Amino acid sequence: MKSMIVGALSAILLGGAVTSFAQVSPEDQIEIRQSGYRYMSWNMSKIKAQVIDGSVEYNQQQVSAAANTIAAIANSGMGALFGPGTDKDIGDLHTRVDPALFDNMQEVAQLAGDLSTAADNLAATAQSGDKDAVRVAFGEVGKSCKACHEKYRMD
Amino acid sequence: MKSMIVGALSAILLGGAVTSFAQVSPEDQIEIRQSGYRYMSWNMSKIKAQVIDGSVEYNQQQVSAAANTIAAIANSGMGALFGPGTDKDIGDLHTRVDPALFDNMQEVAQLAGDLSTAADNLAATAQSGDKDAVRVAFGEVGKSCKACHEKYRMD
Repeated sequence: MKSMIVGALSAILLGGAVTSFAQVSPEDQIEIRQSGYRYMSWNMSKIKAQVIDGSVEYNQQQVSAAANTIAAIANSGMGALFGPGTDKDIGDLHTRVDPALFDNMQEVAQLAGDLSTAADNLAATAQSGDKDAVRVAFGEVGKSCKACHEKYRMD
Repeated sequence: MKSMIVGALSAILLGGAVTSFAQVSPEDQIEIRQSGYRYMSWNMSKIKAQVIDGSVEYNQQQVSAAANTIAAIANSGMGALFGPGTDKDIGDLHTRVDPALFDNMQEVAQLAGDLSTAADNLAATAQSGDKDAVRVAFGEVGKSCKACHEKYRMD
């Protein structure tokens, strides 16, 4: 069952890639994926400030909007942005991706699926407005980000 | 009634700003907002390829995921990314924003509200899977992007 799910995720990841490689240059793929991660990161930081640090007062509407954004980006088919030629720097354009990612697409699909699951759960939890539950769900998203960064993001 | 709505939108836009200015540098605000627009643009291009150009076969799941991403980013409180000091280039960091935007925040809030409305409608329409309806809803999002670009984005 697990391998079926991984297989399906790989198909989604690679399927997305097939329809998009023809249209988006490797340079643009790198810039667009970095944009997606940067925008997710900003939204993670907004939630962190409200449920972990407490440096900003908890605002359920803002947290929910941020969680929806993280989930939408996680589910937007980012696999299409890891096409051929995007495994290393292109001129001045720097990528932190570990080239090993491209040899382990099935595991990457699993990690991406874990992020989607955790982000969907955070978005659903944020809608309920329970700050403590949001804190737990937020932690799970953070773990799923970190799991991939530790394996496939270089310094 | 209309002025009440505009007032409420301004409050949302500026309210978002108040909680975030302290934490995000002007440089980061410019980079993050550019990331958000770039990621929206990629998702617009995916829908365009499927419902306007026809260069990619219509895939309801992909179109819906793209529409959800556009709507989520449109609703993510981008007003917080137009804080003091973000009205012009900072060193090598170039922004295309017209400084006039910062003197017309009430109109900008209205334009941002128009984008949110059109993007929410596109996301709801995409979920139904009717390609013709998606084409119409997509056109309305494009118009709302253009309305702001023509007024407040420089070449």
